[in-house]
Amino acid sequence: MREVAVLGVGQTKFGELWDRSFREIGIEAGLEALVDAKLGSGDVNGLYLGNMAAGSLLSQEHIAPLIADYAGLAGRHLPVVRVEGGGASGALALHQGYLAVASGLYDFVVVGGAEKMTDVADATANQIASATADHEWEVVFGATLPALWALIARRHMHDFGTTSDQLARVAVHDHEMAGKNPLAHYRNRLTVEQVLGAGRVAEPLGMLDCSPLSDGAAAIVLGPLEGARKHTDSPIRIAASEVASDTMAVQHRTEITTLASTVAAAQRAFARARRAPADVRVAEIHDAYTISALLSLEDLGFVPKGGAGPAFAAGDFGPHGRLVVNPSGGLKAQGRPFGAVGVAQVAEIVRQLRGEAKERQVSGASVGLAHDVGGTGATSVVHLLERVN
Amino acid sequence: MREVAVLGVGQTKFGELWDRSFREIGIEAGLEALVDAKLGSGDVNGLYLGNMAAGSLLSQEHIAPLIADYAGLAGRHLPVVRVEGGGASGALALHQGYLAVASGLYDFVVVGGAEKMTDVADATANQIASATADHEWEVVFGATLPALWALIARRHMHDFGTTSDQLARVAVHDHEMAGKNPLAHYRNRLTVEQVLGAGRVAEPLGMLDCSPLSDGAAAIVLGPLEGARKHTDSPIRIAASEVASDTMAVQHRTEITTLASTVAAAQRAFARARRAPADVRVAEIHDAYTISALLSLEDLGFVPKGGAGPAFAAGDFGPHGRLVVNPSGGLKAQGRPFGAVGVAQVAEIVRQLRGEAKERQVSGASVGLAHDVGGTGATSVVHLLERVN
Repeated sequence: MREVAVLGVGQTKFGELWDRSFREIGIEAGLEALVDAKLGSGDVNGLYLGNMAAGSLLSQEHIAPLIADYAGLAGRHLPVVRVEGGGASGALALHQGYLAVASGLYDFVVVGGAEKMTDVADATANQIASATADHEWEVVFGATLPALWALIARRHMHDFGTTSDQLARVAVHDHEMAGKNPLAHYRNRLTVEQVLGAGRVAEPLGMLDCSPLSDGAAAIVLGPLEGARKHTDSPIRIAASEVASDTMAVQHRTEITTLASTVAAAQRAFARARRAPADVRVAEIHDAYTISALLSLEDLGFVPKGGAGPAFAAGDFGPHGRLVVNPSGGLKAQGRPFGAVGVAQVAEIVRQLRGEAKERQVSGASVGLAHDVGGTGATSVVHLLERVN
Repeated sequence: MREVAVLGVGQTKFGELWDRSFREIGIEAGLEALVDAKLGSGDVNGLYLGNMAAGSLLSQEHIAPLIADYAGLAGRHLPVVRVEGGGASGALALHQGYLAVASGLYDFVVVGGAEKMTDVADATANQIASATADHEWEVVFGATLPALWALIARRHMHDFGTTSDQLARVAVHDHEMAGKNPLAHYRNRLTVEQVLGAGRVAEPLGMLDCSPLSDGAAAIVLGPLEGARKHTDSPIRIAASEVASDTMAVQHRTEITTLASTVAAAQRAFARARRAPADVRVAEIHDAYTISALLSLEDLGFVPKGGAGPAFAAGDFGPHGRLVVNPSGGLKAQGRPFGAVGVAQVAEIVRQLRGEAKERQVSGASVGLAHDVGGTGATSVVHLLERVN
C-alpha cells in the first residue's frame, strides 16, 4: 500500500441553506477542493460520496452519479460510489477513498460528504436521523437518538459523577470556537446558564446539549503522497484511517458508557500510525450531544474513563489546553449535516495542520485526529493526519 | 495490487419472503458463503453490504453494522461499510470488497447484498425504486423506471427495427432458465403470446417485460488468490472489477439507446483482464426490463449496436448459444431484490465456473461476466471472472 495525502479541501457554509439544492452544495464543495489541489476535473479518477439519507430526505437515491453528472463529469464515466454509515457516512467515504488511492488503482480521488436536512419538517428529519439506531429494538418503542444518548448520559452521571454543568461546558466551548468559523451554523456565544435553562429534549439533555439539523457539504481531494508537493505546499499525510463497528442497540452493550467501536478504531489507528494520544494537538471529535463529546474524549484515549467531565471543565480541551478539540465548533455549533460531518472534520484538521485556520489556528499542530460516529456508536471512524516536513 | 479470488458464495431464495426480516436474510446468505469458504466468522476482516433503499423501505439506515451485529460479530468491532448505487449497489459493494483485498489491507472480506421490497405496498416500492432516476428532472414529472426504459425501447425500435416479439423472447428465455433454479422468484414457463398479451405498464413494455419486486440476499467471500486452495477446490479469480457512471437523466444523453456507462465499464474490464467478449461463455446481464437485456448485450460488446433483438431471437444467447446469458433466470425471473442483484449475479457466475450449477450448468465455461446497472444506467458495474487452472 502506498502513502496517501490530502491535496485539497472544500466546504460550504453549514446551516439552513434553503436557496440551494443538494446537488448544488455537493458540487460547490467538490470544485473548491479541486481548485485547492490545483487539479482539473479531467484529472480525477473517482468519486466517493458520503451521505446518510437522501432517499428518505429528498426522494433521491443513487446520488454519487447525480453529483458527478451535475459537476459536468458524466462524459468521463468515472467510477463513483456512495457510502453510508449513518452519521459516520462522510468518514466512511474518506476511508474508501483512502483505500482506492493506497491500493494504487486510482491516483486522484474526490471524497465528498453532503446532506440536506432542512427541506423537510424538523420532526421528519429527526425521525429519519433516528433510522441510524436499531429500528426493530429501539425506534419502534419510541426511542430517538437524543433519548438514547440521554440514557448514556444518565449512566455516565451515575457511574462517574458527571454533572449537567460539565455537559453544558461542551456546548459553551463549541459555540465559542464556532464564533471564529465563518462556515459555522451557529456563531453566537452561550453561557452555562443558558444551556442549563434551555427546554429539555430528553433528561438530562436539553435543546442546547443537542447539535442542530444542518444542510452542508464538504470535500477532500486525495492523491499519492509521492508527488504531492506539485499540488500543495503543505501535503497532509493520512497516517491512519480505521473503521470499527459495534451493536446497533445501546441495550445490547455490556457497558453503555463506552463506545467500544471508538475504542477499537482509535487503538488500531494509533498502532498503525505509531502514535499515542499525547502526540495529538488538535482533534475534531463527535459531539452530536454534549455527552457524546465526553465519551469520545475518554474512548479515544485522551483521558481515563469517567474523567472527561472534570477535565473539560478544567479547560484541558479548550483553546489553551493540552489538546484543542473541535476548533471548527464541532457538530454542536459548526452544524450537523449528517453525511458531510466526517469530511468536514478532516477538512478542518487539514486547515489546522497547514496553518491556514486563521483566527482559530491551534499553535504547534503537527498531528491531528478526526473522529466520526454513526447512530449511538454502531460505527466509529478515526483518521490520524500528520504534517509532512 | 494483489490478485483476488472468490472463495465462497451464498444466496437466499428470491421472492416474497414475508416470514423473514431483512437482517435474517442478510445473515443467512453471509453464513452460507462463509461455510462455503471454509472460514469462521473469526477469520473475517471486514464486511461490505450493498443495499439500495432500506431507509425508505424499512426505516432503517446504518445497515452494515446491523447485519454484522445480528450475525454475532459486534464483539469483533469489524470495519463494515454499506455501499449504494441504486440497482447496482450489490456490484458496487463487490468492487469495494475487491479493492480492500487487492490493496492488502484486508485478507478475507464478506460482500453481501440484501433488499426487502415486499414489506411495503407495490406502488410504494416502485416509487422508492424510481428514486434511482433523477428526481428533479424525471421523477417529479411523473417518470418511473419502466416509463424511462419504455422511452429507450421506443427509440431502439425506431432506430434498429427491434420488435415487441424480440423483446418478449428475453422474458421467455429468462423464465425457461429460472425453471432450473430453485432459488428463483418465478419458475413458470412463459410463451411469447403471454408476454405480448400481458397488461401494458408503459408502452411498449407490458407487465411480463418487467422484472418483479423481490426480497432476497446474496453473499460472497473474497480473499487473496494466493492460498485460495486452502478454502476451495475451485478458486475463481476476479480478472476485472470496473465501475462507470453516466448522466442521471435519460434526456441528457446524446443517444438514449446506448448505456455509455456500460460501454465504458466493459471496455475497461476487457482491457484490464486482457480478454475480449468472444472469450466469455456465460454472462449474467442486466435485464430489469426486456429492452435492458438487448442494450446490455450490445453495450457489453457481445453483438453490434442494434443487433441484439435478431440475435436473441436466433438463439445466440440461449442455452445452446455461443454465449449463455442469465442462466439464473436474470432479474426478470430469478427476481430483483435491488441491492442483492449484483452479488447474486457473481454468485451464479462462480457456480457456473466451478461446474456446480447442476441442471443449468453451461458447458465449457472458463470465463464469465456479470453486469449490474443502477437506475437507467447512471451506474454500471462489470466483473470478469475466470476459472484458475
